[in-house]
Amino acid sequence: MRKVTFGGANSLDNYIARPDGSVDWLLWSDEAGEIMKNFWANIDTIVMGRKTWDVARANSPKNTANPYGDIKTYVFSRTLDAGELDGAIILNDEPGAFIRDLKQQDGKDICIMGGGDLARDLFEAGVIDEIGFNIHPVLLGRGVPLFHQMSLQIDLELTECRQFKNGCVYVLYRVKNQRFSSVDSDKL
Amino acid sequence: MRKVTFGGANSLDNYIARPDGSVDWLLWSDEAGEIMKNFWANIDTIVMGRKTWDVARANSPKNTANPYGDIKTYVFSRTLDAGELDGAIILNDEPGAFIRDLKQQDGKDICIMGGGDLARDLFEAGVIDEIGFNIHPVLLGRGVPLFHQMSLQIDLELTECRQFKNGCVYVLYRVKNQRFSSVDSDKL
Repeated sequence: MRKVTFGGANSLDNYIARPDGSVDWLLWSDEAGEIMKNFWANIDTIVMGRKTWDVARANSPKNTANPYGDIKTYVFSRTLDAGELDGAIILNDEPGAFIRDLKQQDGKDICIMGGGDLARDLFEAGVIDEIGFNIHPVLLGRGVPLFHQMSLQIDLELTECRQFKNGCVYVLYRVKNQRFSSVDSDKL
Repeated sequence: MRKVTFGGANSLDNYIARPDGSVDWLLWSDEAGEIMKNFWANIDTIVMGRKTWDVARANSPKNTANPYGDIKTYVFSRTLDAGELDGAIILNDEPGAFIRDLKQQDGKDICIMGGGDLARDLFEAGVIDEIGFNIHPVLLGRGVPLFHQMSLQIDLELTECRQFKNGCVYVLYRVKNQRFSSVDSDKL
């Protein structure tokens, strides 16, 4: 079955972008580049929410086409019509069911990108296998959150941890198991 | 000048306790114990908010006395009267000014404990020198947050990173500099 990884870069206070979506605080390094190169070699599909798609396109030099090139790109949206748009496939489906089905199909692994809105739905649907993040040495103070509140606890197994020269810490976890919290859901 | 460290243990999604304050998910290890032992040898003062104080006392076998023993304990509160209470000193002062003054006095280093409410005030006052956390391999989904929204960005320097056998990642950062965000404060 195809592996689904939720991955990217975050600040120590768990933001993935400033409030306006900008990522000028990201640090580049050959060490991160090497990990990314190996990671992307096993990926042929990326999945994100519409807001992440907007930011990715705004930051792309091409501006209108899919900034991810030949990688199959699915974008979940509640406002755009389903169908092909600028090299991506817009979906109005329920994310968990869609990804569960996608994992059964032939292909390489799948990367979930962007903010925690979509990731929360996918965590709650139990379809994420791996979490990989490059923790940057900064407290942004505010921004787009990496993780949202969830109704369940997810136990992880640390499979890799690397300290980069620039002060980033790369961590990779396997999703071990998830269970609904013992706290009543009406206390959420 | 006395060093001020904001430290503790957190989940990967940056909670320091479940919604009811419980920390049953914490993993003990000799590796963490060794770091803690060296850390506490340089500390003679701890500072926390009233909610953290309540949880610490509820989890203490003694239940009423100061669970931190001989370590000088300051508790900031907006509801309790200032003065001595069960081995702690209750303060109604403005936290930033108090800690700034405390750093100038003779003594060992100072540890800020607990949730992000007090830490945010102290970050914004510019009195925290170091951040040390033991990141646990779990997404709790909800709970008491480690970091709150702030009106400034704080750049950090990673000074230590250790991967423990139990899957925890210990990170220690020096506060490098802090600057108010360029985003207008009315967008907060």
